[in-house]
Amino acid sequence: MAFEKVKREENYSEWYNNLVHNADLAEHSAVKGCMVIKPHGYAIWEKMQQQLDHMFKETGHSNAYFPLFVPKSLFEKEEKNAEGFAKECAVVTHYRLKANPEKPGALMVDPDSKLTEELVVRPTSEAIIWNTYKNWIQSYRDLPILINQWANVVRWEMRTRLFLRTAEFLWQEGHTAHATKDEAIAETEQMLEVYAEFAEKYMAIPVIKGVKTPNERFAGADETYCIEGMMQDGKALQMGTSHFLGQNFAKAFDVKFQSKEGKLEYVWATSWGVSTRLMGALIMVHSDDEGLVLPPKLAPIQVVLVPIYRNDEECEAVINQLDIIASDLKKAGIRIKVDDRDTHKPGFKFAEWEQKGVPIRLAMGPRDLDNGNIELARRDIKTKEVIPQEGLIEVVSTLLDNIQNELFEKALQFQKKRTYEVNTWDEFVDVLDNKQGFAIAHWDGTSETEEKIQEMTKATIRCIPLNNPKVEGTCILTGKPSIQRVVFAKSY
Amino acid sequence: MAFEKVKREENYSEWYNNLVHNADLAEHSAVKGCMVIKPHGYAIWEKMQQQLDHMFKETGHSNAYFPLFVPKSLFEKEEKNAEGFAKECAVVTHYRLKANPEKPGALMVDPDSKLTEELVVRPTSEAIIWNTYKNWIQSYRDLPILINQWANVVRWEMRTRLFLRTAEFLWQEGHTAHATKDEAIAETEQMLEVYAEFAEKYMAIPVIKGVKTPNERFAGADETYCIEGMMQDGKALQMGTSHFLGQNFAKAFDVKFQSKEGKLEYVWATSWGVSTRLMGALIMVHSDDEGLVLPPKLAPIQVVLVPIYRNDEECEAVINQLDIIASDLKKAGIRIKVDDRDTHKPGFKFAEWEQKGVPIRLAMGPRDLDNGNIELARRDIKTKEVIPQEGLIEVVSTLLDNIQNELFEKALQFQKKRTYEVNTWDEFVDVLDNKQGFAIAHWDGTSETEEKIQEMTKATIRCIPLNNPKVEGTCILTGKPSIQRVVFAKSY
Repeated sequence: MAFEKVKREENYSEWYNNLVHNADLAEHSAVKGCMVIKPHGYAIWEKMQQQLDHMFKETGHSNAYFPLFVPKSLFEKEEKNAEGFAKECAVVTHYRLKANPEKPGALMVDPDSKLTEELVVRPTSEAIIWNTYKNWIQSYRDLPILINQWANVVRWEMRTRLFLRTAEFLWQEGHTAHATKDEAIAETEQMLEVYAEFAEKYMAIPVIKGVKTPNERFAGADETYCIEGMMQDGKALQMGTSHFLGQNFAKAFDVKFQSKEGKLEYVWATSWGVSTRLMGALIMVHSDDEGLVLPPKLAPIQVVLVPIYRNDEECEAVINQLDIIASDLKKAGIRIKVDDRDTHKPGFKFAEWEQKGVPIRLAMGPRDLDNGNIELARRDIKTKEVIPQEGLIEVVSTLLDNIQNELFEKALQFQKKRTYEVNTWDEFVDVLDNKQGFAIAHWDGTSETEEKIQEMTKATIRCIPLNNPKVEGTCILTGKPSIQRVVFAKSY
Repeated sequence: MAFEKVKREENYSEWYNNLVHNADLAEHSAVKGCMVIKPHGYAIWEKMQQQLDHMFKETGHSNAYFPLFVPKSLFEKEEKNAEGFAKECAVVTHYRLKANPEKPGALMVDPDSKLTEELVVRPTSEAIIWNTYKNWIQSYRDLPILINQWANVVRWEMRTRLFLRTAEFLWQEGHTAHATKDEAIAETEQMLEVYAEFAEKYMAIPVIKGVKTPNERFAGADETYCIEGMMQDGKALQMGTSHFLGQNFAKAFDVKFQSKEGKLEYVWATSWGVSTRLMGALIMVHSDDEGLVLPPKLAPIQVVLVPIYRNDEECEAVINQLDIIASDLKKAGIRIKVDDRDTHKPGFKFAEWEQKGVPIRLAMGPRDLDNGNIELARRDIKTKEVIPQEGLIEVVSTLLDNIQNELFEKALQFQKKRTYEVNTWDEFVDVLDNKQGFAIAHWDGTSETEEKIQEMTKATIRCIPLNNPKVEGTCILTGKPSIQRVVFAKSY
């Protein structure tokens, strides 16, 4: 059953929730905080995975798999990391159930199966991976190690939202080991570039690349790089992070290598990840009041073909011709679906595929068939036109590229329009509360001020942009000297 | 550091363990019973995944994702299933750690974070999935549901072996829902065929298709279909299972649908899965005393190119030409690697790629370069010949196909040779203990006899083959009447 459609302007949050439901992307499960990713949602995630995986491999990385569980004694070794995640850890304490003698048919935890050491369900895998790397690394010849893992992780969350914040989520986490600091920083920056390229070229979402303030850094990192996107409500969403971990994990797990010069040195580390949160960004940036809008490069179905007919004879003729067209489109590498269900009317199908964000809809009735025409509808700007079937492949192919580019351009214009350089506290608050956008403002560089601003406005420093111009000014809150402007926004 | 090479004939189990280590496939982790799948091992698993995923989609299935955790109250609903897995369940009981006041720097489970209901880490997902399907299914129009999930699962194991039996493993689990019994059985059989085709055409492993006896059925299934392969020590390995679940889960979770005729009926179910266990089969069927042997279709690297040179000048000339050849091979769709490391000698590289199972090695020195030749070595039968570079792509391409076919043929001959029809208890025991193979024997059809035979010989009934001829005889143990022969073997 479909949820009521809500307009973005009326209630952005409800619009999002209902859209995720109506587009059949995901739903809440019987497990508190965990989601079910439904086939249409998962198919989009698969498209993302495939492209990211390709980009990771092109930059020299291999996939591997490390355990789901982290023994508590390993988990606590890197203190900052442990402290950062301790409050949201699911913990396995027993390894067996048994029949409940007091309740026939029911099971209970077998108290005799208590583990001597508790296991943390990984909230992130630095600890288990660096404990493994310790045995893999002796000499500079063993470096670099460039590994990525596709996995599920668990961070216990009380207030969850589908894709954006769930107790279990899917992600990839890269974990690399290097002989030098420079090489590790270069890797961190390279992966940020990969994420930015993916966001802009595939998700059609413009992003700001930057580094986090110390307050917002990943627990255990020396520097956290990030990409930030702007949603249609003007809030920021952190879309990916790439961490320079320094020698923190090498020291915690005692991972040293013999350098070319024969010296024993600690290894340098990075880690970087994106998650199913990206689905939230994809939905929130492009979709409209009718439902999901997908950039063609990530659309599992790029073109849906719908037959229109009044009787069996027409049905057969129309579907025959649609099948021929579909087969040509497929040969051209376009992902298609012929919706030949006889249980639903064209109008129902139009609405369904519109909600699910298929970029192009082709519809054909008997008259189109006779005239050699077909109706082409664009999901993104909702135009419709009847065009000749001749040359259709070329038209569709070009249009998919154009839609991809136009979605990016539209999102970029939106982001620009909603980004304001502000110089006074009033302007600052006005941007956050009324204009709803990013405020580019001076900040005195202290954590204290950052926290105070967050308390007062709920806005955080999303990042200090890369290659940020050093322009002197005065802090928006304290009036103290500032050496640069930073990006403030409310965020997800 | 490499482990000592052990001959298969001397100690099969140690041969396997050392090979897994030396070929860099996997290793034990710091978490009891859990493995680390290393990049080379994971790359092979990825090849398997890609092919299987393709076959699942070709047969109409979509991927989705369900929660890692199953609340105990849902887990126990299908009683047989719950009972079958209760003894090997990892259980999450708490969701937070806190600083240990008695041990600075250490963490402890926060007793205040005890869950009101324990969560089982999924050993299989029928319970959580059927609890979800309940909300997806109202009418016959909602059926069938054809979903697959790629996931990690946990079954607590005390005695583990890399890939073959680990507490956490990776797998895929298909879960389908149907309106009729016939349709569900057809699905179960179709997926068994998919597995058999995958095993034979891609893994180059001949398999016996059959059904399990009631004793060996999946907990909660009405019928378990399986494919069984023969390892080089004559033992069987269950490579995949496809379960007809009847209406057991529909009844446990109250999943009914309105039929075309307007009647309310319980839904019919199947589930089917293969896991990283297949890696164990792949290793054990084809490999030899030198290391891994891979069928070309699943080899992440099909051809490795090794330059041979004495000085920089030769190095440059040889590598230049190898790069040209490599690029041509790549264009022809062949997965290649040029091993141009200057830190290792050719002999070292030869040994490494041999251990890792790369099907074809091409080596070129200055003389080959001058003569327009190249040396081609086959991993599987260890032949070597110098051939002209002209026409190389065609030669390599054909050879990869031939190796694939020959590996299958060799495994098939081995399986045939080691499969014995036996008619007396002595013959039966001789096959299991001395000849080491499969015993095709009469059995009286009772669970009691089956269990007795297992106690006495450690052999189990691997399956009752599909389309098994009904031939009367007398049970190998009890002498009672039997209506057919079944497959007995020791197994992994």
